[in-house]
Amino acid sequence: MACLIGLDWGTSSLRAYRYDGAGGIAEARARPWGIRQLPPGGYDAALADITAGWPALPRLACGMVGSRGGWREVPYLDLPASMARLGDALESVRAGDGMDVHLVPGLRDPQGPDVMRGEETQLAGALALRPELAAASSFILPGTHSKWAVVRDGRVTGFRTLMTGELYALLQHHSILGGNAAASEDAGAFTRGVAAARDSGAAGALSRLFSARALMLDGALAPASVPDYLSGLLIGEEFRAALADGLGRRDTPLQLIGDAVLCERYRRAAALFDIALPPPLQDAAAHGLWCIAEQAGIASKETLAC
Amino acid sequence: MACLIGLDWGTSSLRAYRYDGAGGIAEARARPWGIRQLPPGGYDAALADITAGWPALPRLACGMVGSRGGWREVPYLDLPASMARLGDALESVRAGDGMDVHLVPGLRDPQGPDVMRGEETQLAGALALRPELAAASSFILPGTHSKWAVVRDGRVTGFRTLMTGELYALLQHHSILGGNAAASEDAGAFTRGVAAARDSGAAGALSRLFSARALMLDGALAPASVPDYLSGLLIGEEFRAALADGLGRRDTPLQLIGDAVLCERYRRAAALFDIALPPPLQDAAAHGLWCIAEQAGIASKETLAC
Repeated sequence: MACLIGLDWGTSSLRAYRYDGAGGIAEARARPWGIRQLPPGGYDAALADITAGWPALPRLACGMVGSRGGWREVPYLDLPASMARLGDALESVRAGDGMDVHLVPGLRDPQGPDVMRGEETQLAGALALRPELAAASSFILPGTHSKWAVVRDGRVTGFRTLMTGELYALLQHHSILGGNAAASEDAGAFTRGVAAARDSGAAGALSRLFSARALMLDGALAPASVPDYLSGLLIGEEFRAALADGLGRRDTPLQLIGDAVLCERYRRAAALFDIALPPPLQDAAAHGLWCIAEQAGIASKETLAC
Repeated sequence: MACLIGLDWGTSSLRAYRYDGAGGIAEARARPWGIRQLPPGGYDAALADITAGWPALPRLACGMVGSRGGWREVPYLDLPASMARLGDALESVRAGDGMDVHLVPGLRDPQGPDVMRGEETQLAGALALRPELAAASSFILPGTHSKWAVVRDGRVTGFRTLMTGELYALLQHHSILGGNAAASEDAGAFTRGVAAARDSGAAGALSRLFSARALMLDGALAPASVPDYLSGLLIGEEFRAALADGLGRRDTPLQLIGDAVLCERYRRAAALFDIALPPPLQDAAAHGLWCIAEQAGIASKETLAC
């Protein structure tokens, strides 16, 4: 029996989950239809296609679908924001099939300012999967725009976006540091990059970027290893800056959320900062959508006849 | 009477200077023929065109023309490097017209590692124009790859490359932060960006980049002002990092070299760090080429019958 359809709808991709009555994932689908690359027919066509053959169920969506320029803009919740109360702040948009799609709000940290959309749902799912982290912890959500979030007493109290993934892609594809040769994996070059960032002191690794070129001209770094060196430098800088800003602390748990391959890079980088990170939490968005739907009474094991 | 032709030959442009017998610039020409965009016929054709109609004179070139991938690779001089002895380390390449083109070596800082080509000639010219700076000073050469160089007793003792200009272009043309609207000049946004970098502490402004987007979503920064905010953030980060690294010091003179418009941004940024920068030195490459040619005995007021 299915009780809910969850949609993780970002800038470049769309994922849909059909849940069983216990909140387990009965089926998952993915399409490349982020809000910047919708199919002909737009949001309605994308929704109809990705849910084709599924029963007509309540639908809850998170991510950039709720942004300005998305299907409907849902106002941000300002920090501190309780992850157990995201369900109180949903808004909805009427789809072409006559049924609503409920939308999760993003979070705004007035101290940055900084904003997130989609990661709040992953954080809600992570806290449901690891309730022992609710009291005091920090989370790292690596990606195009990595987020570091601080949680206290079940509430997000601060976060920051680091554009690590986007900067890596820009430097690799468009800068003088990129395009040297076919990249080959080089764990040693990655480690050197992390160490260079860690050891850059208060100046920071932005002032060390050009070392990738100087090392290559020196013959001290193979052209094919430059991408891994850059990856290490940027991920290392993420740790250096976040630790300097108190976003992660050595006396509270630090938990990764996300893709296994990318998170493994973060675990290797953390080791160079003498931090042992546990394995990452996965499918956090899917879990979070279910939890938020339960909070909001959209999906419920007890009350929905599905 | 002319005694020398100087060539400032970089990645994207070529400038040529014809000097009078006293080292003054009798004529200057510019072409878009950097080493990555040579005309048909390559180096020889570019040289023949830009010196067309000039007498057959000794020729001295600086910049990427002496790099790997240039006309001929000239080895870097390692620091500390005396600016009065660059002329001892010239190499040359035989041009298609049967005469040599002498090439100025770049500098290499083994501590970075870091490298420069072309800026060493600007530094030589700057020290000739301002001999009182030779004892102890720092120089800022803003650009695609900005350089901060420390001079002690007429020698360059350290330098660092900061990819400020390239990062600005990447973020403006290829990232989520760019392309929002036609840019309009906004001195206030520039100042806010500089201040955000200055106040980013040890975390550094790379961790504040995303604030450009968050401020815009907040309505606190007009889309057309994002470019000036980003410019301020990156130039401010250049000052924050360079000062943290001891490349510039408050107790020794700090001197700009370069384009007047860009240098004016650096002077405004410096003011937010409580540093009053004097007006920039201009035509430093042209002066430096003359000085180095004199050192090397290629051009001389006394000995050349020109």
